[in-house]
Amino acid sequence: MFESVEVGNRLSKAAFKRIEPHMRHDLLEVQKELAVSPLSVIVIVGGAEGAGKGELVNLLLSWMDARGIDVQAFWDETDEERERPFMWRFWRVLPPTGRLGIFFGSWYTAPIIDRVFNRSDDADLDRALDRIVEFERMLADENVLVLKFWLHLSQDSQIKRLKKLEKHPDESWRVSKSDWKFVKKYKKFHRISERAIRRTNTAFAPWHLVEAEDVQYRTIVVTRTIRNAMQSALEALKNRPAEERRPDMPKPKKFNVLENLDQTQTLTEEEYEAQLTKYRSRIGFLARKLREKGLSMALVFEGPDAAGKGGAIRRVLSALDARQYRVVSVAAPTDEEKAHPYLWRFWRHLPRRGKITIFDRSWYGRVLVERIEGFCSPEDWQRAYGEINAFEEQLAESGIIVLKFWLQTTPEEQIERFRDRQTTPYKQYKITEEDWRNRDKWNAYEAAACEMIEKTGSDALPWIPIPANDKNFARISVMKAVAKALEDRLK
Amino acid sequence: MFESVEVGNRLSKAAFKRIEPHMRHDLLEVQKELAVSPLSVIVIVGGAEGAGKGELVNLLLSWMDARGIDVQAFWDETDEERERPFMWRFWRVLPPTGRLGIFFGSWYTAPIIDRVFNRSDDADLDRALDRIVEFERMLADENVLVLKFWLHLSQDSQIKRLKKLEKHPDESWRVSKSDWKFVKKYKKFHRISERAIRRTNTAFAPWHLVEAEDVQYRTIVVTRTIRNAMQSALEALKNRPAEERRPDMPKPKKFNVLENLDQTQTLTEEEYEAQLTKYRSRIGFLARKLREKGLSMALVFEGPDAAGKGGAIRRVLSALDARQYRVVSVAAPTDEEKAHPYLWRFWRHLPRRGKITIFDRSWYGRVLVERIEGFCSPEDWQRAYGEINAFEEQLAESGIIVLKFWLQTTPEEQIERFRDRQTTPYKQYKITEEDWRNRDKWNAYEAAACEMIEKTGSDALPWIPIPANDKNFARISVMKAVAKALEDRLK
Repeated sequence: MFESVEVGNRLSKAAFKRIEPHMRHDLLEVQKELAVSPLSVIVIVGGAEGAGKGELVNLLLSWMDARGIDVQAFWDETDEERERPFMWRFWRVLPPTGRLGIFFGSWYTAPIIDRVFNRSDDADLDRALDRIVEFERMLADENVLVLKFWLHLSQDSQIKRLKKLEKHPDESWRVSKSDWKFVKKYKKFHRISERAIRRTNTAFAPWHLVEAEDVQYRTIVVTRTIRNAMQSALEALKNRPAEERRPDMPKPKKFNVLENLDQTQTLTEEEYEAQLTKYRSRIGFLARKLREKGLSMALVFEGPDAAGKGGAIRRVLSALDARQYRVVSVAAPTDEEKAHPYLWRFWRHLPRRGKITIFDRSWYGRVLVERIEGFCSPEDWQRAYGEINAFEEQLAESGIIVLKFWLQTTPEEQIERFRDRQTTPYKQYKITEEDWRNRDKWNAYEAAACEMIEKTGSDALPWIPIPANDKNFARISVMKAVAKALEDRLK
Repeated sequence: MFESVEVGNRLSKAAFKRIEPHMRHDLLEVQKELAVSPLSVIVIVGGAEGAGKGELVNLLLSWMDARGIDVQAFWDETDEERERPFMWRFWRVLPPTGRLGIFFGSWYTAPIIDRVFNRSDDADLDRALDRIVEFERMLADENVLVLKFWLHLSQDSQIKRLKKLEKHPDESWRVSKSDWKFVKKYKKFHRISERAIRRTNTAFAPWHLVEAEDVQYRTIVVTRTIRNAMQSALEALKNRPAEERRPDMPKPKKFNVLENLDQTQTLTEEEYEAQLTKYRSRIGFLARKLREKGLSMALVFEGPDAAGKGGAIRRVLSALDARQYRVVSVAAPTDEEKAHPYLWRFWRHLPRRGKITIFDRSWYGRVLVERIEGFCSPEDWQRAYGEINAFEEQLAESGIIVLKFWLQTTPEEQIERFRDRQTTPYKQYKITEEDWRNRDKWNAYEAAACEMIEKTGSDALPWIPIPANDKNFARISVMKAVAKALEDRLK
């Protein structure tokens, strides 16, 4: 593959000088359009050592308006990054709409380097690459234009270039030992990069192989590609028919896992108190062990209004040290959140090792309230199932215990609780007009929840439906499940 | 001081039960009001080990609406925190407007503990405390209500409590070796905490000493204090006369450092090229040394429109590895930024150790554009001088080299550049209607700049005024100053 670009492409200085002002003008124009568009752009600069990646990035910054560009260099992970799922460090710096992010190193670096140095095998590599494809598909769906450049240099040229740099008194410091280490691994690096590029060369995020030998040539090829791709993407956005955001009211299906919950189960006050004490101390002990082992936990609470999410959460919290957990209440997104792909607002709250995050409502909002109220397009919530599964798998693999609770009451029980809330002074804040409105859509919400449970529940990441008509029973069920999950994992 | 609260305050269970529902109701009510107000609240929970800080926080979370509360526990610093100024870890988690942050440990912890374990002396402690006072004054001015609680326990009670916990089979894990280490240091901890509390007990952020012996008593005292303080603060905001945000147009003073710059200095193209090459390689080399030494740098560029900030920045960048720097262009704040104290948006961009951040416009906007356009109240920009000085001192002390450039052209030169921008295709994006409007206020901006230079320039953190009528001269002057600052610091 690489050989196909080793053809000695060159561009004369004169031709370059002729093209440069036009290119700069075009780039600035298209960047101005970007700034007021719902698009964001990621330029990934990959390739061989010594191929001039740094120079290229400097040039882009000087030709374009540096104020609209964020350069992200992914050197060694910080401990905050290391203690979270691998992709966290990329999510945290995704450019918001209107901006361009230049990624120096990327999600490709670790999988390729790990394989080159035999820290992984081909199957690991392929799995990582397939994940990347899914990730980039999500970015494309979320209006993030991903431009991937691979600057290619033949082995001879690479050696020549490094030697030349080393000889230059002012430049020699640019050459490090690790550069030479890479040169030695050239063939292997070459083979593995090729595999990575082939497998991730998709229509929505294609690779651009650029012969890097001639600086004029590579500069114009890269900038032209950026210009054209940005122009097309902005054009496509303009011509796109207005996004359809109609509410989707799914009809209940025959088998309804939520309707079939046994709501007759109850606990007396005495049983409840005894069990609460028991599980509280058990969870307290296990949470401490969790911290010592460097694992973490994410608890997700979903369910209709007044199903007792808050109460159940408080009981779990009462077992924990306040320094170890964080409650994230999911409400309307901020404008920084709206300027990023949907899952960004949840990635930013992921627990570090040893910590516990409790989500009071969660990323499932997309396939529940957003679906039913028409806050997103049908395509958006439909692709969300797969995106959520991929997201949760990453959490689980990085050592986060993920538990997803669905608290379910009957509609009759809900109405009683609403009435109680309206008459109890310190509960009034919990009940709003919206709650009454949502009630009318009970069946649609239930059907959406059933579809969600079906599509996002798995053996490894199951939904835990909790019959919640009896608060005591529901709370203890949650505590029990938390204790069991911790025990299973820590034993 | 502490003795004054060791009086055996108690509250009966019956009285507690009577008060509880009212208190919960009130807290929820006031929290609801908070949610839609421009106020945010920080509750600092300090005090002796074993005084029940964890329980108290859990209780607050269960009585109030946990969804509007962020608990922040300041355990060991992460490397991202350690590599930035001390206060960074607190700034990054300041609660936005409408929310309440409970701080478990705070900016008081390190100064007190350092002193207890003799890692600092009394003078260090006092300096740290005085800084805290300034910081809390700023928070008060920015509508952040700071509530500081100190839960006090006599030494006897502390020992009794820890022993009781240790005996309890389910609770013994709560007692750690470091708890006992603190008990041994009780007297010293006591003395130093007292000093800290006295020195930081201000009208705008008073301490509340609470006898912690009796759980009912301490719970009601703390919650009552929180309720009352929040009610008063919200009331005060409501009754405050509408903030005056009138433009302030300062008159030029007699001595004008900017007018007196020698604008006749020029460099020929040849001189410029030679010097550029020289300083580029010098800065490139020094920046690498900077990284190796674990220092960092913040470059601030201010000056009238078209003074050549962008061009000067680009020349500096051309000497640097794109992976080492970040350009932060200061434009309108996002809503997350607006929901925090003014300097928050700059704290979030501070460079880690080894990195360089270039600010294209900066925190000085408050005393320049915001002052002159009336975007903030006169009180706001007047207190900004002191806040900025305190901010920059913290940067400098943490190993960040801070350089502040003021690029100055004459008004005649500016108008020529505006015309050039309008006729050169790839420069057109740089000129807007606003630039022409700002021009009319040339004198006011210049006077504001002179006042700023006077009030925020110091020997340690001087302003560097650059005569910028000749672009070549200006760019080389900047490069020279950067190189010199690096050399001075790294030699």
